Amino acid sequence: MKLIRFGLAGAEKPGVVTNDGMFDVSSFGEDFGEKFFETDGLTRLEQWWKANGATAPKVAEGTRLGSPIQRPSKIICIGLNYADHAKETNAAIPKEPIVFFKSTTALVGPNDELVIPKDSVKTDWEVELAVVIGKKASYVEEKDAEDYIAGYALHNDYSERAFQIERGGQWVKGKSCDTFAPLGPWLATKDEISDINNLRLWLTVNGNKYQDGTTANLIFKIPFIVSYLSQFMTLLPGDVISTGTPAGVGLGMNPQVYLKAGDVIELGIDGLGTSRQQAVAWKK
Amino acid sequence: MKLIRFGLAGAEKPGVVTNDGMFDVSSFGEDFGEKFFETDGLTRLEQWWKANGATAPKVAEGTRLGSPIQRPSKIICIGLNYADHAKETNAAIPKEPIVFFKSTTALVGPNDELVIPKDSVKTDWEVELAVVIGKKASYVEEKDAEDYIAGYALHNDYSERAFQIERGGQWVKGKSCDTFAPLGPWLATKDEISDINNLRLWLTVNGNKYQDGTTANLIFKIPFIVSYLSQFMTLLPGDVISTGTPAGVGLGMNPQVYLKAGDVIELGIDGLGTSRQQAVAWKK
Repeated sequence: MKLIRFGLAGAEKPGVVTNDGMFDVSSFGEDFGEKFFETDGLTRLEQWWKANGATAPKVAEGTRLGSPIQRPSKIICIGLNYADHAKETNAAIPKEPIVFFKSTTALVGPNDELVIPKDSVKTDWEVELAVVIGKKASYVEEKDAEDYIAGYALHNDYSERAFQIERGGQWVKGKSCDTFAPLGPWLATKDEISDINNLRLWLTVNGNKYQDGTTANLIFKIPFIVSYLSQFMTLLPGDVISTGTPAGVGLGMNPQVYLKAGDVIELGIDGLGTSRQQAVAWKK
Repeated sequence: MKLIRFGLAGAEKPGVVTNDGMFDVSSFGEDFGEKFFETDGLTRLEQWWKANGATAPKVAEGTRLGSPIQRPSKIICIGLNYADHAKETNAAIPKEPIVFFKSTTALVGPNDELVIPKDSVKTDWEVELAVVIGKKASYVEEKDAEDYIAGYALHNDYSERAFQIERGGQWVKGKSCDTFAPLGPWLATKDEISDINNLRLWLTVNGNKYQDGTTANLIFKIPFIVSYLSQFMTLLPGDVISTGTPAGVGLGMNPQVYLKAGDVIELGIDGLGTSRQQAVAWKK
């Protein structure tokens, strides 16, 4: 299944996408958040859909999409998880996953505007494959990690490089601004993706291709990451893990390239759809 | 007012502490979480208490306390915010606040057991003054920052130093284990504390005093911190900001001292009460 949430920001309704379009599943009676995943909502929704999908109302084309999941307990990101990206930023290939958090207040819909933060001069992009956790995970073994995954989504891990790198210790400062985590268009359940380690992911700015990679090049693979993180913290249903970005970010260009108001960022991953953000200036 | 939450873990009820003891305020009908603070719950609770406090049931001595607030959207910590602590860890005095996150799954009650994580050999303590946010804060000026604070609480920012420092980049790995954030006993509203910049804070392990500092020595003061953080991310009602620890952590000892099962950690801050954690070994 492909899950969406649609409607006005803060008042999104749950939906499903099929080859026939987008459908409103509000009658299912649950939103896609921690409790939904925790109580095996995916299985229940699938059964509900079999019985009621034929009469579910269609969602009009052009309706705004929100994040396909409700605000999670955490957004965990893996840094420098593609060798070509580590190289372009003059960083060593990590021996263990680099882990940082992004404030969950950064979460927005896939096509919402990117607000360039006040006083920002180095707002950058990062196309990433995000994993959504399906059940509570603590000290999970790599061989069992798959069981703890609900599905996957497209994520743009926007990063303010001056805030991240030049303002004293720890990356979270440059990763957490409002609108810095557009997620979606949809959450694809595990069964929708035949080979998670062979997906092309790409990103353009104003039509110019900057990123064009493949998840085949992930240094640390997804089951390892889930298992690894679960040694340090408990992962909750609905939590997001963003698995890192391939080469081609603005920081890696010579000269460096950063976003300005009016720029249009488009990105996509095989099977996980595309998203589009227009950059706008911060306003009081 | 002093707010508590009491009862079994995961099923805590809201309460209030006065000079006469602990009282159950379940009849108020709300738990102390994001929505409560967002809707000026503190004022409403105060009014409710004036009308109904006299008949509120007493909570029995010895009842377990939970965190005085529900799980927040984030726990933000400030690193190296006391000069003596920066010095003992051989770190430079920061020019700007060092900011890191702690997984909210680490949150527990003030007297719950500390679970030493699996494979941990460097579990350390950090007594800290925590600020709880009262309303949504984005780009707040320092002079207005006070308005965004609900109150204060005692926090022990447990830290696994090997996970934090020796496992590759970013501190969050060593800060996020389950039970690593005992908060409380209570949330003291702002008006309870006459001078937030003159509170003694201390910590003992097995009765031996390790930390004995004062908030007078905070490098970055609380209004500055709230304003500073709000330039990088939106703070939500109920969010926790832990403001750093004074000298005397295990990492700073020569030789270093780390916690083992059976150790008893006690800590306190003037006006914010005391807490006590017994360390236990991790069990499957």
